Amino acid sequence: MAHAPVPLIALLTDFGTADWYVSCMKAVMLRLCPRVQLVDITHEVPSHDIVAGAVTLAAAVNWFPPKTVFACVVDPGVGTARRLIAAHADEHLFVGPDNGLLSLVLQRANRLTLVRLTNSRYWLSQISQTFHGRDIIAPVAAYLARGVPLQRLGIPQHRYHTLKLPRLQRVRGAIRGRLLHIDTFGNLITNLPASLVMEPRTCRFRYKHAAARVVSSYEEGRRGELVALGGSSGYVELSVREASAAKRYRAKRGDRVELRWL
Amino acid sequence: MAHAPVPLIALLTDFGTADWYVSCMKAVMLRLCPRVQLVDITHEVPSHDIVAGAVTLAAAVNWFPPKTVFACVVDPGVGTARRLIAAHADEHLFVGPDNGLLSLVLQRANRLTLVRLTNSRYWLSQISQTFHGRDIIAPVAAYLARGVPLQRLGIPQHRYHTLKLPRLQRVRGAIRGRLLHIDTFGNLITNLPASLVMEPRTCRFRYKHAAARVVSSYEEGRRGELVALGGSSGYVELSVREASAAKRYRAKRGDRVELRWL
Amino acid sequence: MAHAPVPLIALLTDFGTADWYVSCMKAVMLRLCPRVQLVDITHEVPSHDIVAGAVTLAAAVNWFPPKTVFACVVDPGVGTARRLIAAHADEHLFVGPDNGLLSLVLQRANRLTLVRLTNSRYWLSQISQTFHGRDIIAPVAAYLARGVPLQRLGIPQHRYHTLKLPRLQRVRGAIRGRLLHIDTFGNLITNLPASLVMEPRTCRFRYKHAAARVVSSYEEGRRGELVALGGSSGYVELSVREASAAKRYRAKRGDRVELRWL
Repeated sequence: MAHAPVPLIALLTDFGTADWYVSCMKAVMLRLCPRVQLVDITHEVPSHDIVAGAVTLAAAVNWFPPKTVFACVVDPGVGTARRLIAAHADEHLFVGPDNGLLSLVLQRANRLTLVRLTNSRYWLSQISQTFHGRDIIAPVAAYLARGVPLQRLGIPQHRYHTLKLPRLQRVRGAIRGRLLHIDTFGNLITNLPASLVMEPRTCRFRYKHAAARVVSSYEEGRRGELVALGGSSGYVELSVREASAAKRYRAKRGDRVELRWL
Repeated sequence: MAHAPVPLIALLTDFGTADWYVSCMKAVMLRLCPRVQLVDITHEVPSHDIVAGAVTLAAAVNWFPPKTVFACVVDPGVGTARRLIAAHADEHLFVGPDNGLLSLVLQRANRLTLVRLTNSRYWLSQISQTFHGRDIIAPVAAYLARGVPLQRLGIPQHRYHTLKLPRLQRVRGAIRGRLLHIDTFGNLITNLPASLVMEPRTCRFRYKHAAARVVSSYEEGRRGELVALGGSSGYVELSVREASAAKRYRAKRGDRVELRWL
Repeated sequence: MAHAPVPLIALLTDFGTADWYVSCMKAVMLRLCPRVQLVDITHEVPSHDIVAGAVTLAAAVNWFPPKTVFACVVDPGVGTARRLIAAHADEHLFVGPDNGLLSLVLQRANRLTLVRLTNSRYWLSQISQTFHGRDIIAPVAAYLARGVPLQRLGIPQHRYHTLKLPRLQRVRGAIRGRLLHIDTFGNLITNLPASLVMEPRTCRFRYKHAAARVVSSYEEGRRGELVALGGSSGYVELSVREASAAKRYRAKRGDRVELRWL
């Protein structure tokens, strides 16, 4: 089954889905690229929460086909001098503000080309001061999806804004991390790579005075037991079987967790 | 206007829309079937609520075109020995866990072919323990949408897991049922078939000490009056005009209702 | 890159996304027009809130390509004698109830053709009393997207239901308006046209005993300061930098605002 390539744009914003904002971005994209496949990553990034947006984007990206364009808007600085950028990072393309939102995916790229968006020929003809997602990011994403080369969109840029994320701390016999994200099920996603728990029986987690056994599937836990496992995001997750670990432990992003080898 | 067939996958999950999970499933599908039409039934099935998922799926299915593939994930048993299945039921195709989620649609099928998913050639090359929706169900759905025959996906299976749903109780001059679902408007959807109220004037409902007149449209009710009518789902619904019956009566799924002939 | 036209339907409803309702409409559309692009404007219009639906639709419409069909359902009168209409207004097509939902876009059209839906050949063969969105509006929208001429769908109609919206009041040195909409970020969208604040330094807003400086981007505000600016919707918005103006001022739609020239 041979296919001509189908242009694909994935969207990630903090716009919510109750207003018209997301649909305006899609409308602009469809004007310029009528056959594009549009996929929502999420529009429920908490308002202005660049870290949450960056973590969510980084968890989704690798599953998308080559040449997917990611149009990303968590942009508290809209209308100021902050820059908008587009990037070709390994097999994917990205458009968004240069405020750290794209940085987790750009940091792990082996091949990276980056431009600052300056060529207004690829923008809407009128630019508002409050909605660059619609006026600049959406049309630029659509032109990238149509195959316009990145270089035409602006001038090369070599640095980009990064996020100050908590680092892992190595101490004697243990490694300390933080909660990166809390998901819909109340699972607690840490910043510890899943590869650390490949051998469950040799380690144990501590989170807020609770010890968590390392398991390899949610269902190995007993009801009510806190367990840790290598999650689908590539990080260690803490979970309570068929319940919300977030509610039980009143978890907040940034909470400390410790992995200790036995 | 003749059309070549367009592959169509409908998704139903309990993943919510705030995380990256749904987009990962769609990304996998689009890798394998770039021109597929993707339609969300809902991703807001309450976490792990297989009955709610099964009822929602059964209400949606019949409106979809022949050959639609339904990719369904409400799967508290992910990572355990529970089976994943695919089915050809009348004109539609289904993929999901064998935990009852698909059972309401399979039960009413006239023609049914069922396989247990065992052929890992149609899965992602690496299978996580926590996200079979992405790693197995999504690619299998995409291959079905591309036309891969069901039989190639696994070995035939003859039984499937069913749900223990409340049955209708027939008593003298009346029939007793339960609330199956509460919708966004606060309408109460019962398990009594709509066909029972074809002749409104001959019967009346009781729900929690309230009597409900049978009508044929929401607007026949007076403001504040509880009415019953044959709903669009094929079941009898209880409704309060321009208000939420659910809030007014503090309704819960499973509540009893009685239809009495006059 | 020449394209054959791609049919496009945009949906706006108060159905929410937890039930099967929206997917049933899409399923019906895809049966009749398998290659259609479907875009959600929103399904989170508050239940039965025709004004909110009309404001949201009017804010989104102009960004969509010519020939987009808008399928709109906020329809508390479903099943009663209220009419369903379809319209060709400038470059776009609309289908929905004649209850004011479409009126804001119809009022501003330069060219307008309107029909009352009467030709049941373009409806589903069975019509429920509770879900005309699925049974009539969805198939009519799909036929319009396929190119069926508006005139075939029903009989010409010359008037349509309008909304009684608050008007602007001009008083000496000032103009008084109201809050039309509160968005996800807690920004307060008024009914004052953005063009009124083209010259920021010459005017100032009052809202609930607070004075709001007129600025040209969100970020010109100091943290915690209420500012007013010409928003992306074409109206003046009140906003607090990186915070929710709605929460801080306990805003409600309909609240009064005043613009005073200095």
